[in-house]
Amino acid sequence: MKQLTQIATLGHFGLIERLTSPFKNTNPTTTFGVGDDAAVIDAGDHYLLLSTELLLEGVHFDLTYFPLKYLGYKAAVAGCSDIVAMNGRPKQITVSIGVSAKFAVEHLEELYAGVRNACEEWGVDLVGGDTTASVNGLAIGITAVGEVAKDRLVRRSGAKENDLVCITGDLGAAYMGLHLLEREKIAFAGHDNPQPDFNGREYILRRWLKPDLRADIVDALAAEGIVPTSMIDLTDGLASDALQLCKSSGVGVRLYLERIPIAAETRAMAEELNADPIVAVLNGGEDYELMFTVPLEMRDKVLHFGGVDVIGHVTKAGAVLVTPDGGELPLTAPGFEGN
Amino acid sequence: MKQLTQIATLGHFGLIERLTSPFKNTNPTTTFGVGDDAAVIDAGDHYLLLSTELLLEGVHFDLTYFPLKYLGYKAAVAGCSDIVAMNGRPKQITVSIGVSAKFAVEHLEELYAGVRNACEEWGVDLVGGDTTASVNGLAIGITAVGEVAKDRLVRRSGAKENDLVCITGDLGAAYMGLHLLEREKIAFAGHDNPQPDFNGREYILRRWLKPDLRADIVDALAAEGIVPTSMIDLTDGLASDALQLCKSSGVGVRLYLERIPIAAETRAMAEELNADPIVAVLNGGEDYELMFTVPLEMRDKVLHFGGVDVIGHVTKAGAVLVTPDGGELPLTAPGFEGN
Repeated sequence: MKQLTQIATLGHFGLIERLTSPFKNTNPTTTFGVGDDAAVIDAGDHYLLLSTELLLEGVHFDLTYFPLKYLGYKAAVAGCSDIVAMNGRPKQITVSIGVSAKFAVEHLEELYAGVRNACEEWGVDLVGGDTTASVNGLAIGITAVGEVAKDRLVRRSGAKENDLVCITGDLGAAYMGLHLLEREKIAFAGHDNPQPDFNGREYILRRWLKPDLRADIVDALAAEGIVPTSMIDLTDGLASDALQLCKSSGVGVRLYLERIPIAAETRAMAEELNADPIVAVLNGGEDYELMFTVPLEMRDKVLHFGGVDVIGHVTKAGAVLVTPDGGELPLTAPGFEGN
Repeated sequence: MKQLTQIATLGHFGLIERLTSPFKNTNPTTTFGVGDDAAVIDAGDHYLLLSTELLLEGVHFDLTYFPLKYLGYKAAVAGCSDIVAMNGRPKQITVSIGVSAKFAVEHLEELYAGVRNACEEWGVDLVGGDTTASVNGLAIGITAVGEVAKDRLVRRSGAKENDLVCITGDLGAAYMGLHLLEREKIAFAGHDNPQPDFNGREYILRRWLKPDLRADIVDALAAEGIVPTSMIDLTDGLASDALQLCKSSGVGVRLYLERIPIAAETRAMAEELNADPIVAVLNGGEDYELMFTVPLEMRDKVLHFGGVDVIGHVTKAGAVLVTPDGGELPLTAPGFEGN
């Protein structure tokens, strides 16, 4: 009998490549397919962007502490963030849910209220979806459609040597928020009406439960007349996302540890949990911030719009993290084992 | 404490309406949103069609007897059938899967091989998707994108009084195939290497495991210069789908029982199982055939391309099934309880 290959041996990205590489695109409107945050479809005078996400209970969220309204909002963020990462604006989404018998109509209304909040905030239309039964917990499928002018499309693959590596916001907070919630879940297990004290932890909780969509960065880039050479959204952890961008662009990066912005609350939580905040930054994920590269001469322009940090630069090859003492650590991430 | 509403009390379509009606569309490119088989997005010189499906293990398929290659193919049919139902041609799909640890790479390759067979057969491009872990069985999210010329778009809502009700192929076969497989699953439970005898049941099994996409009908309609006044794909059972079309169009239908095509194998299986083949037709579902309406004067044109039957006509109101003895039964379907 043929030996079977465990998925873990290929790594996440090796698996995707193995599954999708036998496919050949044939439609002239398919401009770019697998390999970016969103697919790019030619719509004549502009590009249409298409992205899907599948969120599963027990893997992506824990309903013990995840309010359904926030979950609906975050699902919309997860879908639309891929559009933003291509420098596009989200326009339409569909939401499909699989629900078990334990859910009542009011629960689903909470979930959809969160989706609606997101839609209203960003000017996105809910255009479809379905509800179906599930025997195995809540499943949410989100598809986002966006638009981008043809000359403003940004992919993962355009980073050039000496480009600056920029990131928005701060990193690692969502992961620390998740850890706090997981700790309290264990501490309060069996309590009928748990009232954990989250005083002073509001920021990291919000970053996990209700992240922001960085559509404002797309607007700011347009206002400053900047088209990044490459971009990706930070959802798998800085290390994994940086490695993906490097791989797509055929380049390397040097990132400087002390330049990576980490919120005080993130550091405080890490300290309390005896964890390293850098691990949260590198491997935590779900920050929903953006990493992009721009030519060196755009430094001032990029810093001008605030909330963006230059954390390193693009090199010919090799992805390294430079520590404050000048040491170099290779960037590594789960899912890249196969490379 | 507020009384919670059970989902079943609203019915499937009542639930969708309750969840989606608070949403207001604001983008000019959102031509039509919720309420058709696919959403319609304005892409300048043509419409873009968008549809998503969520298929869950234990609800939509049983891996005990569903070969993964067929499952991949059928998932693609499920996604693209909604595009065809709008008189469009599918162009791109994305496939997202949630897989538990019991799956090996080779299993997923089987699934994707089925998707690829479908893509190659129809000229559709796989442009995205993702794999994620699942703690609860296999989940498949399919998004299909299609195109249709603006003057060839067909919705559910255009049926007019006296129009002819046409259907493609024959109905009820998939449901009987499912029942055969379920029976054999129980009969062979505990056997290490079950070898059920499916001789003479190939058609109904194929209809469940590997249905056809009726994209040929879109081509035939175009070749004959016919734009149906309304169309829907037959996935929820003829009764439910007819009621949806009636509701969207604000009309009724009279369908004639003896005109509904049922394959000999379907009848034979029903007889063996002491089941009524009409129940399979009306409430079975997953036929992936098309029901459409055309003006009366197009009768000859429609019958000309073969494999299409006129099974009734559109009335002012009320959906009834006329039995061979001239009796009338109201069409009813689960999910319409709330109406």
